[in-house]
Amino acid sequence: MGGIGFFGGLFEVKGYQQPVLTSSIDGVGTKLKIASALAKHDTIGMDIVNHCVNDILTCGAEPLFFLDYIAMGKLVPEQVEAIARGLARACRQVGCALIGGETAEMPGLYTGEDYDLAGFIIGVVEKDKIIAGKTIAAGDIIIGLPSSGLHTNGYSLVRKIFGETKEVLGAGYPELGRTLGEELLEPHRCYYPQLKPLLPLIKGMAHITGGGLIDNVPRVLPQGLMAQFHARAWAVPPIFQLIQQRGDVAQDEMYRVFNMGIGMVVICSPQDAKQLIKQLSEARVIGEVVKQVDKARVVIQD
Amino acid sequence: MGGIGFFGGLFEVKGYQQPVLTSSIDGVGTKLKIASALAKHDTIGMDIVNHCVNDILTCGAEPLFFLDYIAMGKLVPEQVEAIARGLARACRQVGCALIGGETAEMPGLYTGEDYDLAGFIIGVVEKDKIIAGKTIAAGDIIIGLPSSGLHTNGYSLVRKIFGETKEVLGAGYPELGRTLGEELLEPHRCYYPQLKPLLPLIKGMAHITGGGLIDNVPRVLPQGLMAQFHARAWAVPPIFQLIQQRGDVAQDEMYRVFNMGIGMVVICSPQDAKQLIKQLSEARVIGEVVKQVDKARVVIQD
Repeated sequence: MGGIGFFGGLFEVKGYQQPVLTSSIDGVGTKLKIASALAKHDTIGMDIVNHCVNDILTCGAEPLFFLDYIAMGKLVPEQVEAIARGLARACRQVGCALIGGETAEMPGLYTGEDYDLAGFIIGVVEKDKIIAGKTIAAGDIIIGLPSSGLHTNGYSLVRKIFGETKEVLGAGYPELGRTLGEELLEPHRCYYPQLKPLLPLIKGMAHITGGGLIDNVPRVLPQGLMAQFHARAWAVPPIFQLIQQRGDVAQDEMYRVFNMGIGMVVICSPQDAKQLIKQLSEARVIGEVVKQVDKARVVIQD
Repeated sequence: MGGIGFFGGLFEVKGYQQPVLTSSIDGVGTKLKIASALAKHDTIGMDIVNHCVNDILTCGAEPLFFLDYIAMGKLVPEQVEAIARGLARACRQVGCALIGGETAEMPGLYTGEDYDLAGFIIGVVEKDKIIAGKTIAAGDIIIGLPSSGLHTNGYSLVRKIFGETKEVLGAGYPELGRTLGEELLEPHRCYYPQLKPLLPLIKGMAHITGGGLIDNVPRVLPQGLMAQFHARAWAVPPIFQLIQQRGDVAQDEMYRVFNMGIGMVVICSPQDAKQLIKQLSEARVIGEVVKQVDKARVVIQD
């Protein structure tokens, strides 16, 4: 894994010709309120780690180490321990060191059992292997990898539509095959293990977080190009349909707030697309890169 | 500054033979409540940056880049902008890149104008220049560098003693020469610019944060050694006396909760102490390293 030596809280960068560092800082947003309402805190740590790992994966980086920030009104040891279990599990799965962090007790800022959780990750990539989207050209293929649910975006809207009482979250839905709360708390999926061996085939990647396909994909496209998606190329998971119906949310807003079932977008040449699809069992072609015709950088066709 | 090249959010580690990375994550705690009560948000960013820079300085590291996490119930652009000004100023002063961060809007978690602010810093140090305290021996000198006030520790206790109303914070005290609020909001001091050129003379350092001299100094001492401080070697600033009197706080607790006027402790050989004191105009010898006699790792003599 690149020969990164652990040195008492310090990291020696070894085994890279020209190591380039990258980092990401994120929170899990109000998904925390769902965890609190369900009193289930052992997966929220996976959310933040996986979110961070996916963020730095988009430039081709290997995760090195992760630090967490937990802030509470009053420290509840069992709660902190449950959060830490989730952090540790997710870090272990990608070979990333969890080097602790800060647990802050802030009476008067956080009420009751509320808490906040943020994560910070540092990764490294060989300079000549940085994935920056620069070689993306018209005709390139856009591959979508399925999300596991909402990941960590859109929770404020969801809470506005449904509320967050135990009754609401405990209600089962046949289309979900479980309760709304269980569905909403499903951890953010990590794409690093699958994509790591395939990075040499990839020209550009976008982690689909807040802003959805519409805001996240253009960031990786060179000037003058746009992404053309075919909405029928993938099945939007039932949770998004449920949210849209209950909240009477416009289609455009759905694609801006939620990932709509696509957690990671990978862009490659038509030649490499077959190989990628073959290796990534759940992936599918969901669009292509075309020349920009007006201001739009993204179109989602029916 | 070590040849760290900025690369569109990525950092190339150059100019180091054996670069070792270090990092720190911190919050500013409930000092935030003072900033909110006074509606003054342009210095709290300096607090978090300087706190982080001092943390990694203790192993001899140069700060590379900083990321912030700001969480609010509802984004107040002027407030975020004021916080960012403080972050930028402090980063500029130490040549550390501020590469943005995450600003999260979390309705329902933060009420009113409350917000939380955390910071993550990454630094680098040449492997053979890591300062780890291993060569510290009995007879070594302990030098104290003055703090600018409470820095970022002890605010929950202060708020408990005084409250945090505008009246309380707006009251002037002759011994402070200003209002209590102004005194409490004084930014955390940064020791990097002063200490950077002197690092080769330093055997060990302790950043005096939560836990005070009593908890922070032993971390850097080898087994079998203890720190002996002479309380009369430095003047405890009036704010600490005021807090102690108003809150009827025991002396021992004062030294555990607050920095008592010493923000950074530097340990060196008797030969190098003169040179350090000469270069560091406000520093003074505040104690020495001696053999441990019982369980105590720290004694503070009158």
